[in-house]
Amino acid sequence: MSIRIGILGYGNLGRGVECAIKHNPDTELVAVFTRRDPETVKILTETAKVYSVKDAEQHKDEIDVLIICGGSATDLPVQTPEYVKYFNVVDSFDTHKRIPEHFANVDKAATETGHVGIISVGWDPGMFSLNRMYANAILTEGNDYTFWGKGVSQGHSDAVRRIKGVKDAKQYTIPVEAALESVRNGENPELTTRQKHTRECFVVAEEGADLARIEEEIKTMPNYFDEYDTTVHFISQEELDRDHSGIPHGGFVIRSGKTGWNNENSHVIEYSLKLDSNPEFTSSVIVAYARAAYRMNKEGQKGCKTVFDVAPAYLSALDGAELRKKFL
Amino acid sequence: MSIRIGILGYGNLGRGVECAIKHNPDTELVAVFTRRDPETVKILTETAKVYSVKDAEQHKDEIDVLIICGGSATDLPVQTPEYVKYFNVVDSFDTHKRIPEHFANVDKAATETGHVGIISVGWDPGMFSLNRMYANAILTEGNDYTFWGKGVSQGHSDAVRRIKGVKDAKQYTIPVEAALESVRNGENPELTTRQKHTRECFVVAEEGADLARIEEEIKTMPNYFDEYDTTVHFISQEELDRDHSGIPHGGFVIRSGKTGWNNENSHVIEYSLKLDSNPEFTSSVIVAYARAAYRMNKEGQKGCKTVFDVAPAYLSALDGAELRKKFL
Repeated sequence: MSIRIGILGYGNLGRGVECAIKHNPDTELVAVFTRRDPETVKILTETAKVYSVKDAEQHKDEIDVLIICGGSATDLPVQTPEYVKYFNVVDSFDTHKRIPEHFANVDKAATETGHVGIISVGWDPGMFSLNRMYANAILTEGNDYTFWGKGVSQGHSDAVRRIKGVKDAKQYTIPVEAALESVRNGENPELTTRQKHTRECFVVAEEGADLARIEEEIKTMPNYFDEYDTTVHFISQEELDRDHSGIPHGGFVIRSGKTGWNNENSHVIEYSLKLDSNPEFTSSVIVAYARAAYRMNKEGQKGCKTVFDVAPAYLSALDGAELRKKFL
Repeated sequence: MSIRIGILGYGNLGRGVECAIKHNPDTELVAVFTRRDPETVKILTETAKVYSVKDAEQHKDEIDVLIICGGSATDLPVQTPEYVKYFNVVDSFDTHKRIPEHFANVDKAATETGHVGIISVGWDPGMFSLNRMYANAILTEGNDYTFWGKGVSQGHSDAVRRIKGVKDAKQYTIPVEAALESVRNGENPELTTRQKHTRECFVVAEEGADLARIEEEIKTMPNYFDEYDTTVHFISQEELDRDHSGIPHGGFVIRSGKTGWNNENSHVIEYSLKLDSNPEFTSSVIVAYARAAYRMNKEGQKGCKTVFDVAPAYLSALDGAELRKKFL
């Protein structure tokens, strides 16, 4: 019998989850819950139904794991603690500073109701977090580096779009190759924000807009761009649509550390991702953790978990003997 | 109170474990057990004792985890199932084909006596296995690639040393850069053995030895070299000692896979290691898993485990809240 999954929120991430379920034959999409009028939401899975989010609770016995695809700013802090009362859940909460609070809220509701809620699943937080943690447990003395990109930052693209005279825009975060090389060589550099990443913007300006002023406003925007070297390209809407419609991303987690009685030996551990589609990769991680949530709950576990608390074997459709044979 | 560790077997790996324990203040080396005369074995840790391996069982109440540093060919198949009767143990068993049998033997003895035995810990098997498994759980459709090196292969170095006229030798396994690049670019190449790695030998010949014959014997040696492009350099013992005394190693685990409703997006996950000292890095992984063995057993778990069965948080000296704050 397959693991019955519900999706709450059908945007880029929800659609990614739907695709990932198709790639995992032991999982099955049962329902999509939406805040929109369900009649207007067309999904790809013929066997699944679309319901109003208001009716989610009524379907609790038909669903093994609910994947919550809301935003971290205002949706997940409310949704995850609420829905974990009725379902095992997985979310991709990524507001780092509010994780302790979110964890506590989800843990309380999950423990009281006997469910498992796995939070902050994806690649960062998620796989990058895991790799930072594993590398620190192995190399106790050393330095950590995380680089992001090359990839589209939604937040930065939005910030550019809000500038007067900008019709559309896409922003790429790009790691500085020389910094990456220095870290890989075990040189343990101290890197400023500017030395780690550059930013590149592709901007469609409104007709007659003052391009010099737009470029200046981008480059000096506090928090978003002022600490970076930024390049601005003005292009047509046609070019933007043709060349910049994807949502690629990725990055690098590197730990460089020492071993030996007198720290005489150096080691570098590197984990990297190169992703055509940020939401689809994130979704693929989430569906593996949905399998884990289901199994852990079946075994009687409950409460809030993160990627640190989930034994790797729970993520795979294969059993222990198969895993040892194939991957050990 | 720190985790009290014993080491069985004091070679390169045992010494590496001793160094790793120094880097993990919540662990403490209590005893080293040796097959040699204990009087002749000098260790670095002043507070630890050296005993004959014959007396190991007598010290079972002083030790929380015994790290077994024997060889996979003949030592570990006997030692791990034997000592897990008295101790929680960790080993680095790496004979892939015999893992099912080794797992079953260790599991039986560990379950009967209430101990935890974690087998096949290190980097391959170990961290590489974990990364293959995680990547496969995330990207269910794709291809796996493992490259080793640049690093010293002990087995191949020994094979060269057994050739008549060879006084000393060191063999490096080197991944082919073009193959790595093709894999990283998501080209999903089908690679022969020869296309993945080259081999480089540094050989000290005996005086008057027939160098051409030695080179030919190396290059055509079945199983070890005949399927590879091999380069042979004849150097002096002085050069070998000066330039090739280290035991570096490393490698790359790459999975390239597809997501999307119609597999329209590609992704590449890469994990790589660059290690100055193969045994010291392996030991550092082992000590983190010794912490896990101790904790899991404290919680009442027993039986044989591999890296797939151990939740990441067990490896770290930090608690859950600290891990979430620092690495999530």
